Amino acid sequence: MNDVIGLINHAQNAYARCIDSGNLEAWPDFFEEDCTYKITTADNYAQGLEAGVIFANSRGMLLDRVASLREANIYERHVYRHFLGQPWIVSQETSEVRSETSFFVTRIMRDGTTDVYATGRYIDLYKLNGGAPKLRERIVVCDSSRFDTLLALPL
Amino acid sequence: MNDVIGLINHAQNAYARCIDSGNLEAWPDFFEEDCTYKITTADNYAQGLEAGVIFANSRGMLLDRVASLREANIYERHVYRHFLGQPWIVSQETSEVRSETSFFVTRIMRDGTTDVYATGRYIDLYKLNGGAPKLRERIVVCDSSRFDTLLALPL
Amino acid sequence: MNDVIGLINHAQNAYARCIDSGNLEAWPDFFEEDCTYKITTADNYAQGLEAGVIFANSRGMLLDRVASLREANIYERHVYRHFLGQPWIVSQETSEVRSETSFFVTRIMRDGTTDVYATGRYIDLYKLNGGAPKLRERIVVCDSSRFDTLLALPL
Repeated sequence: MNDVIGLINHAQNAYARCIDSGNLEAWPDFFEEDCTYKITTADNYAQGLEAGVIFANSRGMLLDRVASLREANIYERHVYRHFLGQPWIVSQETSEVRSETSFFVTRIMRDGTTDVYATGRYIDLYKLNGGAPKLRERIVVCDSSRFDTLLALPL
Repeated sequence: MNDVIGLINHAQNAYARCIDSGNLEAWPDFFEEDCTYKITTADNYAQGLEAGVIFANSRGMLLDRVASLREANIYERHVYRHFLGQPWIVSQETSEVRSETSFFVTRIMRDGTTDVYATGRYIDLYKLNGGAPKLRERIVVCDSSRFDTLLALPL
Repeated sequence: MNDVIGLINHAQNAYARCIDSGNLEAWPDFFEEDCTYKITTADNYAQGLEAGVIFANSRGMLLDRVASLREANIYERHVYRHFLGQPWIVSQETSEVRSETSFFVTRIMRDGTTDVYATGRYIDLYKLNGGAPKLRERIVVCDSSRFDTLLALPL
């Protein structure tokens, strides 16, 4: 169990570092080619509603998203910092792991203001790929249903 | 040492998940039948004052507390998300462990507002029960002495 | 790798506990005699600017800093609570480890107000000293360039 927690911890840490350092182009590499990435709210998730704030079902769509973020130049205006709880291993098979991890993201604006941007949990399905885990599915369930119109950077 | 940290980490993570998911009825199960649960402030704790904001000395009292929370229906109005530091092992014997763990709790109101609700540390005495640790004592020492009148959910 | 992460995790946890408990006199002991401690901003760091908000290049300078904090009595007015991400091992040799760790610090004022004080990352060079790691270098890179005039306690 501890080995799997260590492995997933490392993967989550790498993911957070990637976004927090502004290296958005590398972000899609944390996903399998065939993947689901969704941002939704706790209310919607609890009700089983499919509609999310953001939805992608291939790595190509994630790449498109990064390209449009770069074009819109939104990223220059703020940075994130992620803090992650310890992954909770929901189930584990030979080649995949389901886990849930609390997240807390602060946003730092260009003027230096820092606020609590979002809290919630990642509901993940990791493919282990023999020690190099990638996300087959990440559902980002935000606790709050109030979304900032700047919601743009990946969570 | 790492084994104990892993064990306590897992227990703390389970505790936080229980509250954050709103499963209050399961919360008393993290405690021994004969237990102490107390919420106090850093000032009071440093002065050795016994008086706390909340005090219970049996699992039955924790169950009563959950029942009254449900009746008052306070829980519908907000949710918590806990973030925990790595447990610090203060002492370790065959069947019990004393640890301290920093906590940070955000509160998400129904209107979507998210704020820093409380920070502090858990001062815990865990009975190990052969790998299924339960709390014999949890003193929740909040850094701030300003308590929200909504203080109701367990920390 | 997990052993090193555990070792650095423990050292970081001890460091945070030291400051959060107000035991400033012990803070310099986390550093080698010959050390660098610097607080700077992400902007300055990215541009390679040397100028930092705070700079010290020996343990003696850190001791001086603690002494002047005590004299100014600033510490009585607020406390900190640190939350640290999992250390990211950048490189590892026999006797030293380079790591990066996200931090998030809340500040609790005497009147009970709690706010997000600073976020950023520690860029560290740890000397391992056969299992008793000490900091040869800590660069505290704050995400925000807006510094509170109270910046006084160590980060």
